[in-house]
Amino acid sequence: MKVIVFGGDGFCGWPTALGLSNVGHEVVIVDNLSRRKIDIDLGVESLTPIATIDDRLHAWKEITGKTIRFFQLDIAEEYHLLRELMRNEAPDAIVHFAEQRSAPYSMKTSETKRYTVSNNVNATHNILCAIVDLKLKTHVIHLGTMGVYGYGGQDSAMIPEGYLDVMVPTDGDYVPRRILHPVDPGSVYHLTKTLDQLVFYYYNKNDGVLITDLHQGVVWGTNTDLTALDQRLINRFDYDGDYGTVLNRFLMQAAIGYPLSIHGTGGQKRAFIHIRDTVKCIQIALESPPDKGERVRIFNQMTETYRVRDLAKRVQEMTGAEISYLENPRKEAAENELVVDNKCLLELGLSPTYLDKGLLEEIVDVAKRWRERCDVKRIPCVSLWTSSEGKTTK
Amino acid sequence: MKVIVFGGDGFCGWPTALGLSNVGHEVVIVDNLSRRKIDIDLGVESLTPIATIDDRLHAWKEITGKTIRFFQLDIAEEYHLLRELMRNEAPDAIVHFAEQRSAPYSMKTSETKRYTVSNNVNATHNILCAIVDLKLKTHVIHLGTMGVYGYGGQDSAMIPEGYLDVMVPTDGDYVPRRILHPVDPGSVYHLTKTLDQLVFYYYNKNDGVLITDLHQGVVWGTNTDLTALDQRLINRFDYDGDYGTVLNRFLMQAAIGYPLSIHGTGGQKRAFIHIRDTVKCIQIALESPPDKGERVRIFNQMTETYRVRDLAKRVQEMTGAEISYLENPRKEAAENELVVDNKCLLELGLSPTYLDKGLLEEIVDVAKRWRERCDVKRIPCVSLWTSSEGKTTK
Repeated sequence: MKVIVFGGDGFCGWPTALGLSNVGHEVVIVDNLSRRKIDIDLGVESLTPIATIDDRLHAWKEITGKTIRFFQLDIAEEYHLLRELMRNEAPDAIVHFAEQRSAPYSMKTSETKRYTVSNNVNATHNILCAIVDLKLKTHVIHLGTMGVYGYGGQDSAMIPEGYLDVMVPTDGDYVPRRILHPVDPGSVYHLTKTLDQLVFYYYNKNDGVLITDLHQGVVWGTNTDLTALDQRLINRFDYDGDYGTVLNRFLMQAAIGYPLSIHGTGGQKRAFIHIRDTVKCIQIALESPPDKGERVRIFNQMTETYRVRDLAKRVQEMTGAEISYLENPRKEAAENELVVDNKCLLELGLSPTYLDKGLLEEIVDVAKRWRERCDVKRIPCVSLWTSSEGKTTK
Repeated sequence: MKVIVFGGDGFCGWPTALGLSNVGHEVVIVDNLSRRKIDIDLGVESLTPIATIDDRLHAWKEITGKTIRFFQLDIAEEYHLLRELMRNEAPDAIVHFAEQRSAPYSMKTSETKRYTVSNNVNATHNILCAIVDLKLKTHVIHLGTMGVYGYGGQDSAMIPEGYLDVMVPTDGDYVPRRILHPVDPGSVYHLTKTLDQLVFYYYNKNDGVLITDLHQGVVWGTNTDLTALDQRLINRFDYDGDYGTVLNRFLMQAAIGYPLSIHGTGGQKRAFIHIRDTVKCIQIALESPPDKGERVRIFNQMTETYRVRDLAKRVQEMTGAEISYLENPRKEAAENELVVDNKCLLELGLSPTYLDKGLLEEIVDVAKRWRERCDVKRIPCVSLWTSSEGKTTK
C-alpha cells in the first residue's frame, strides 16, 4: 500500500516509517521538522545522536535498497501544499503523528498552549478536508492517547475501546445507548486529542472517511530492530522535563547516578507500550482497515499498566539507584486505578514486548551508552499546571 | 459591571451590547467586522440598511447619552492585542459571539470549513488563555447552539441543560454518573461548538475559569426596543441561503410574492428564540454568575419548538404565500422530535416573546418595509453537505 506518514521524522513516526517500508509498503514522510526545532528552543537534544532526515533516508536506501521519499511542509499552516501532495500521491492510508505531543510543553506558556491547540486541531482538520475535497478513499490512522479519559481516581471500571454502553433516562425509564466514552483531559495537549476525536466522529459520519484512532499509552523503548541496524538510523531518546517520559527520566537519572525523582506519591497508574509494539500496531491497523460505512474504529494501544513508584522500583532493582519524592506540578489525582481493554490489537496479532524483558536493553544500550551526552539540568519538569500551585519543582 | 462583547457588531452582538449598555453596564465592543466582509464575499447584504459601527455608536451616544467603546481586532489571529486589551480593561465579564455562525457557510468549501474551525476554536481558546495568563476573574458567557446534540430522529428524551445523568457499567453492575451530554454535530459549524464545549470544560476544571455556556435555538426577529429607536441603530436581517435562517427566508419569500421553499419534508423540528429574549437571557446570565469553583453552567436558551413545515404554514396563514417542497441539501433526519428543558432561564426571570405574537411585526416592519432591497437570487441555499448528494438545490 502507499502510505504517507505525517510527522515521520519524530520519535514514533520514524520507526513506523521504517517498519512499514521494510514490509513492502510504499512510504512517504511528511514533516515540518518542528520536533527538532522545539529542541533548539528548549536548549535540549536527544540523548541518542540522531542523524538529519536526509542522512537517515540515504542510510535506509543504502542498507535495504528501499526508498522513502520526504517532503518538508507544515500541514497545519500550508493547506494548499498538503492538498497538492494528497492529490499527487492519492495514498491508500495516512498515519497522522503530526501533533505537538508533550503535556508539560503544552502547559509552559500561553504561546505553547496556543501553538498546541492551533497546530493539532488544524493539522487533523486539514487532512480530513483534503481527503473529502479530493474525494479520496484514504484510510486515516491517528495516534491518540489513553489520557483523553483522565485519571480521575479509584474508579475501577475497565476503559473500553472507544465506546461506552450506558443507560440513558427516557420518560422515567432507562434505554441503552452506545456513546463515545466521556473524556476528561488533564492538560492542553490531552484536550487537543479530545477535540481530534470529535473531528473524526464528524467526518466519519458526514463524509464516510475511514478512520482508525489508536489511543496509545506511554511509549517506552528507543530502538526497533530496524533503527538499530545503523547508527544513522538511531531513534531519538528524550529525557528532558518536557518531552522525556517518566521512564526515560528514571533511566537517565540511574545512568548518571542521580536519584530517581517521583512527583507526588508515585501512585499514578499509567498504561505503557514499547516502541516496537507501536510500530507493529500501526502495521496491523493499516492492514486491517475499517469497512466502508464503519464508524471510527478505536483501539487502546497499550500492553501493560504500572504505577510510577513501581516503575521506579523496577529501575532501582536493576541499577541500584536511589528514589526521591518531589512536589507534583501536575493537577491530578495522587493515586488512580487503571484497567484497560486492549483485546482488539491482541486479537489482530500483537505479541507484546513487556517491561520486564526490554528494560535492561534500555539501561545498557541507550542510557549508559550515551550518558556523556546528558545535560543534567534539563531533567527536571518545570511546567506548572496552574498558576496558583506555587513554586517550581526542582 | 464592565463587559466586553466580542462580536458586538453582529446580529446577536449588537442588540446585546445596546441592551447591556441601556441597563447601566459599561460595554466595550470588540469585532473584526468579519460578518460584513463575508457579505461582500458572498455578494449579499442585510435586508435592513445597517449603519457603520461608528455611526451606530455615535447614534447611541446621541440618543441615550451612553458611551460604548469599540476596538477592531481579530481575536483568533491577534492574541497579543487581545491580551493587551484584556489587561487594560480587566472586564468583569465577556460575552463571546466572535464565531462564524452559519452552518451552510461552514459547508461551502474547504476554505470555509477550515476558516470556521480555525477561527472558532482559536477565538475561544485565546480568550481563555488570556484570562488565565492575566489571572483575571472574568466570567465568560458563550453562545453555543442547541444543534450540538444533533437532531437524530424519533428519540423523545428531553434535552437537559448540559449534563446527562446516565448509568455506567462497572464490574457487572451499573453506577450513576453525570456526564456532559453526548454530542452529534450536524455541520462543521456545529462541530466547532462541540469543540468549544470541551475547551470550556477543561479550562473550568484546570484553571477555575467561570463560564456560562448558552445553548441557543434559532434566533428570529430583527429589532429590540433599543435597535428600533433610530434607523442608525437598526439590526441586520439576513435572508440569503447561507446566513438567513429558515424563518427569515420564509418571511422574505412571502414579502416578494414567492413560494415558501421547504427543504425535504419540513419535518425537522427546531428550537426558537426571539432576539429580544436572547438579549434578556444574556443579561440574566451576566447578572447571575456561577459561584467560584462551580463547573461550567449550561443553559438551553430557547423558548419554543416548531417543525419547519408548521412554521411555513404559520407564515402562509398571515400572508397567503404558497409553499413548495425542494430536495434537502443537508444530511439530516427527515423528521425528528425535540423536547428541551429550559427551566433555568425561566426561573431566573425570562418572559418570552412567542412566535404567535411577534411574527406579524417581522412581516410588516421588516420584510415588507424593506423588500425593495431584496436580491431574489440570493435566497436559495446552495451549500451541499456531502459531495455525493448530487446537484444543487435551486
